[in-house]
Amino acid sequence: MPEIRILTEAELRGFVALDIEIVGAIEAAFAALATKPVAMPPIMRLDIPEHRGEVDVKTAYVPGLDGFAIKVSPGFFDNPRLGLPSVNGLMMLLSARTGLVEALFLDNGYLTDVRTAAAGAVAAKHLARPDAETAAILGAGVQARLQLRALTLVRPIRSARIWARDAAKAEAAAREASADLRIAVTAANDAQSAVEGADVIVTTTPAETPILFADWLSPGQHVTAMGSDAEHKNEIEPAAIAKADLYVADSLTQTRRLGELHHALAAGLVAGDAGLAELGAIVAGLAAGRTAAGAITIADLTGTGVQDTAIATLAHRRAQERDRGTRFAT
Amino acid sequence: MPEIRILTEAELRGFVALDIEIVGAIEAAFAALATKPVAMPPIMRLDIPEHRGEVDVKTAYVPGLDGFAIKVSPGFFDNPRLGLPSVNGLMMLLSARTGLVEALFLDNGYLTDVRTAAAGAVAAKHLARPDAETAAILGAGVQARLQLRALTLVRPIRSARIWARDAAKAEAAAREASADLRIAVTAANDAQSAVEGADVIVTTTPAETPILFADWLSPGQHVTAMGSDAEHKNEIEPAAIAKADLYVADSLTQTRRLGELHHALAAGLVAGDAGLAELGAIVAGLAAGRTAAGAITIADLTGTGVQDTAIATLAHRRAQERDRGTRFAT
Repeated sequence: MPEIRILTEAELRGFVALDIEIVGAIEAAFAALATKPVAMPPIMRLDIPEHRGEVDVKTAYVPGLDGFAIKVSPGFFDNPRLGLPSVNGLMMLLSARTGLVEALFLDNGYLTDVRTAAAGAVAAKHLARPDAETAAILGAGVQARLQLRALTLVRPIRSARIWARDAAKAEAAAREASADLRIAVTAANDAQSAVEGADVIVTTTPAETPILFADWLSPGQHVTAMGSDAEHKNEIEPAAIAKADLYVADSLTQTRRLGELHHALAAGLVAGDAGLAELGAIVAGLAAGRTAAGAITIADLTGTGVQDTAIATLAHRRAQERDRGTRFAT
Repeated sequence: MPEIRILTEAELRGFVALDIEIVGAIEAAFAALATKPVAMPPIMRLDIPEHRGEVDVKTAYVPGLDGFAIKVSPGFFDNPRLGLPSVNGLMMLLSARTGLVEALFLDNGYLTDVRTAAAGAVAAKHLARPDAETAAILGAGVQARLQLRALTLVRPIRSARIWARDAAKAEAAAREASADLRIAVTAANDAQSAVEGADVIVTTTPAETPILFADWLSPGQHVTAMGSDAEHKNEIEPAAIAKADLYVADSLTQTRRLGELHHALAAGLVAGDAGLAELGAIVAGLAAGRTAAGAITIADLTGTGVQDTAIATLAHRRAQERDRGTRFAT
């Protein structure tokens, strides 16, 4: 009798928190994307304008992994009025050999939060200076906190500045991160002062007009932009992409359409593929990452199905090892 | 605390069996497809050739319905060697207002079987002669039995012939259907003799070369072809499409690419849109169905996301009314 393991968000939080093993799994997924015949169909998208709702479905098969994830991510932007979070959803893991559903993660997007932050760690590991010790985080939401934690896993971060449009939120995030990560985290009054002198900058907002400008960037800085996952979102001034010595996408196919690159192409500031790289190729050693301490590097992350398959595979293995969740005969 | 209702195939079989209410729900879904701004993204498809596996994901939002389904349908064709069915999968129902997952149907494709057969009933209701009493079924699988049952719900069927390449399977299906439906069902020695004199013909096979030929068709017959859901499948000789007085698709977008129409277009036997109709438009009264007792009509069914949304909505309502399944706090 086939059996499915069902895990709730609360259960998952008990044994899947951002750590170096997860960063390693996501790093391996990026390498697979560059070196194996990964099957990653275009994102399926359903819009429900009456209720300001949208649903994305992502999947990817990575040869060599026993399973593959299918993720359903609804975003319904009137939910807060009803006392519900905007983002929810679930992920499922299917056997790559039989197609049987092996696990259902009723995670309300939690695994996505973790794998998204882990991609930030992978980007910093390959693109930030090895001695990077000061971080600037633009935005003060869940990803702001997780991305800062991600940086501390791969670089000797000793201090950080958090800026957000809502100063109170930035203050709260800074206090929380200081206590949590045991480093000095302060709220910045404006984005430019947060960025000035930072070794690594992460933008984590849903901004639709740039919040980070080319003039602010100085030699040796690395920027990861992870807020844009739709055509209309734009965190980084297109000129900054042109100014960077190295631009790296999680998936060029996606960033040409959805990421920061999209806006730089539209502005005519980037022509063709010159100087564009993919993170997986750098991880796999097929392309160069940072080559000089003074280089400005930018990673443009839109989120890929291989990350979902990697985190779901890892979460399932840990759940089996610890016998967590509810087993359900079908 | 949000709650999800989980139902297994065995539970679903207890209160969702093909009946006239289900046919009505599917009929309404086709009408919605023709009259409302239904959102039905292209089918997402993932191939895993190493294991002869494929996964389709379908969804559709029908304005006015409280929920929408997302269906994950894996087909892994080496599974029978492992003692597992080739087709499995699940369906989920999300709230159209909040995006929250309301129900998970671990149905192994059962709801798809039911909604597919129900579409056959809708096609026969609008296209077969009202006095149709003899049916021919080509194929002897699950759909052969269900499609015959579907016909009996909408037409005064008194006898049927079942033909399949495997004569023993046709015999078994005929015996079972006789007992089940209390009509005279016999196995036919060849497809042509099954078809001859039948008022309604349903093809239910995965054939890749035609099993039903233009020359066999006579005035007054209606044919429903429901076996083709991929480019390489083809049950009906292209000339039969050209010979028919009326060709009706469940979705022209899909049948132009996947259905019997695809092969007739490729053969150059059908040009443009002349004489092509969609089932939803006929149900809604926007296009004519059968207009003469002597007409030959063909329905080409590839399966649509609105059918999934309709059956999932109905199954959820019945589960709530009967308090079936397992409620799971998330």
